[in-house]
Amino acid sequence: MGHFQDLEHIDGLSISTTSANLYKTRRDDLVMFYFRDGANYASVYTQSKIVSENIKWNRNISSKKIKALIINTRNANAFTGKEGYKSLKILAEEISNKLSEKQNIDEEKPSKVKSSDIIFACTGTIGEKFPKDKISSSIPDLIKKIKYTQNKYIWMKAAMGILTTDLIPKLAMEECFIGNKKIKIYGLAKGSGMIYPNMATTLGFVFTDASIPTNILQKLLKKNITNTFNAITCDGDTSTNDMVSLFATGKANNSEIKNINDQKLKSFEKSLFNVLLNLAKRVAADGEGASKFITIKVKNCKSEKDAKKISFSIANSPLVKTAIAGEDPNWGRIVMAIGKSNVSLKLNKLFLNFGSYKIIENGNLSKSYDEKEVANYMKNENIDIIVDLGIGIKEFTSYTMDLTKKYIEINSDYRS
Amino acid sequence: MGHFQDLEHIDGLSISTTSANLYKTRRDDLVMFYFRDGANYASVYTQSKIVSENIKWNRNISSKKIKALIINTRNANAFTGKEGYKSLKILAEEISNKLSEKQNIDEEKPSKVKSSDIIFACTGTIGEKFPKDKISSSIPDLIKKIKYTQNKYIWMKAAMGILTTDLIPKLAMEECFIGNKKIKIYGLAKGSGMIYPNMATTLGFVFTDASIPTNILQKLLKKNITNTFNAITCDGDTSTNDMVSLFATGKANNSEIKNINDQKLKSFEKSLFNVLLNLAKRVAADGEGASKFITIKVKNCKSEKDAKKISFSIANSPLVKTAIAGEDPNWGRIVMAIGKSNVSLKLNKLFLNFGSYKIIENGNLSKSYDEKEVANYMKNENIDIIVDLGIGIKEFTSYTMDLTKKYIEINSDYRS
Repeated sequence: MGHFQDLEHIDGLSISTTSANLYKTRRDDLVMFYFRDGANYASVYTQSKIVSENIKWNRNISSKKIKALIINTRNANAFTGKEGYKSLKILAEEISNKLSEKQNIDEEKPSKVKSSDIIFACTGTIGEKFPKDKISSSIPDLIKKIKYTQNKYIWMKAAMGILTTDLIPKLAMEECFIGNKKIKIYGLAKGSGMIYPNMATTLGFVFTDASIPTNILQKLLKKNITNTFNAITCDGDTSTNDMVSLFATGKANNSEIKNINDQKLKSFEKSLFNVLLNLAKRVAADGEGASKFITIKVKNCKSEKDAKKISFSIANSPLVKTAIAGEDPNWGRIVMAIGKSNVSLKLNKLFLNFGSYKIIENGNLSKSYDEKEVANYMKNENIDIIVDLGIGIKEFTSYTMDLTKKYIEINSDYRS
Repeated sequence: MGHFQDLEHIDGLSISTTSANLYKTRRDDLVMFYFRDGANYASVYTQSKIVSENIKWNRNISSKKIKALIINTRNANAFTGKEGYKSLKILAEEISNKLSEKQNIDEEKPSKVKSSDIIFACTGTIGEKFPKDKISSSIPDLIKKIKYTQNKYIWMKAAMGILTTDLIPKLAMEECFIGNKKIKIYGLAKGSGMIYPNMATTLGFVFTDASIPTNILQKLLKKNITNTFNAITCDGDTSTNDMVSLFATGKANNSEIKNINDQKLKSFEKSLFNVLLNLAKRVAADGEGASKFITIKVKNCKSEKDAKKISFSIANSPLVKTAIAGEDPNWGRIVMAIGKSNVSLKLNKLFLNFGSYKIIENGNLSKSYDEKEVANYMKNENIDIIVDLGIGIKEFTSYTMDLTKKYIEINSDYRS
């Protein structure tokens, strides 16, 4: 994943953060991404049958260009009923009015901001009354803080402002070319709890100055979410609020992109994938209570679906995750997780590696297996598990972390 | 579940236990159930795609009557390859020879015991070399200890001899009638880790003196496993060694049973269900690190499958289980788990209760909801969660326990 990267300016995007006093201790808990000239955008949302009010709001938005994304933490606005939805409507009206006023002051050609140009991301506790009034009274401050040039500090503030039980802000960036135009792709994310992919997982936001039509953005996002945000799991729980969005301000003035197979998009798509994967890995690595980052590659399967089933069966097994927390090379639990995944296999074709250490070869404990050596490997912070079914050519890699006492501590005491 | 019940004699069954020194500290780790005149039997096994060598052995047994069941702990004999299977063959030969000798001494009409009259249950670590020699050298002691009258002490010793990380031995009994014959149904079980139902879960053994043909025993067991052993989960992990068996010595000499719908079987089936449920609940209640026992009833669904999906989605959610460990009435996490189960529902028909406390009514937070009252309810050792979908007539109840730091402690340090 590498170290922190410094994100700088993206033309057409303004970021502001403030505290709406949603926590007992004062911290930034309200973040706005403002697109003064609008942005094309694409979103993927949770596939849970019970979704938060902000996801409902966003799904009802038909504007092709978005003017602002508002993110609050501490309260998920889920299971808050009609009142929760109405709160968003009121906030969207207030924000759009204030932004319209600002357009009149700042812009040569001001455009009216409508409430349907605003989308929301919420994260926090489910079922508590949505703190509309607190957020409402913080809107003026949020708008006052809008600056038209971004720097690494405001990106870091935004990345910290959207965290809940996360410990580490999550930022990633790539640069690429579309034709001869240099393009920026910047992203940030939060994760930590209820992290298991089902379409999109957790909150992730990616911004680019590229000029790409909405329908192609949506296809790009859907295509590249499978092996990034949909390949991570912390605890197997899926939130009511999951959302990953991609915004394009168009300010790079690259040549027109007409379809997803356009050769000019190749470099952009690769960079987009890298940003999404980088963010997704950071979410997994910072999963609640994590002490180790685990990569589980399952290869040579009959289908990607089979590979994914086995990979997640291992990644979601509390027995595997606790063994890794204990630095115990208890490979028997991997075998158990492969077995319970309900994927047909040929035992005499099965290979298992921990990093470069061979554990199982052709369905038997490897002759080179030396428990002491492997126990030593388990002391690493990054653990690689490679399963080879030897009966096909498809693969899937998932990312997760270990299960520690800290996870229990965090989650048995979340709301107090 | 009630208190311990005292199990006494079942005609035709002998129990003996010994230590084969499979653990560092001396304890009973080898248990034999011996049927001097044989027993009809039925078994259900794990549905994992990777099964232990003893499950393979048992599946190959075609004898209609079984003479002995041998249970060892500490080693699962899973992923031990041909050597693991061969070890069982050698042990079965040794045991059958020794039992044949005993028949010659003790019985008026001695019958030869064949190695194919012996079945095995193994539980413990996967992938370690099966301790054939240690077990072999303990067989004489196991056979020397055979007594033809059982009492509560030997049942308790057997129940303790099959435990691994369980804390509490699990015994249950019922009495019933078939025609005018009084019938005993006694059972014991072990659980604790890798507990999630997929056909059969964990080890469970039920013994009766009833005379019931093998094919009817098998049907009775299959039918009654769904809402008992297949309704519990501790950690969502499925073992390679799961096995629940039912043995009938026939010594009660009840009138002949010709089919499963025989009216004379009604009382027997009810008692069998009670014994299985009693044992299964004890397994869940004693799940690794458990401090609370949780019952999750999901009712008024379109199908039992839907009800089961939701019930297990709640029961296997680490966020639900940690909240309950923390005595936090965080019902939002129940809503999350209902949502992620992928079952279609009508939100305005949804009801949720914690015990008798109404949480959600018609999809809204109940007006009578008082967090303090419910927080007080969460201090109970037994927590009941009732979900009502209001769109059908089917239901399913699952049983589990909370997720505590102790679980992590046990499982990150299992093998040391």
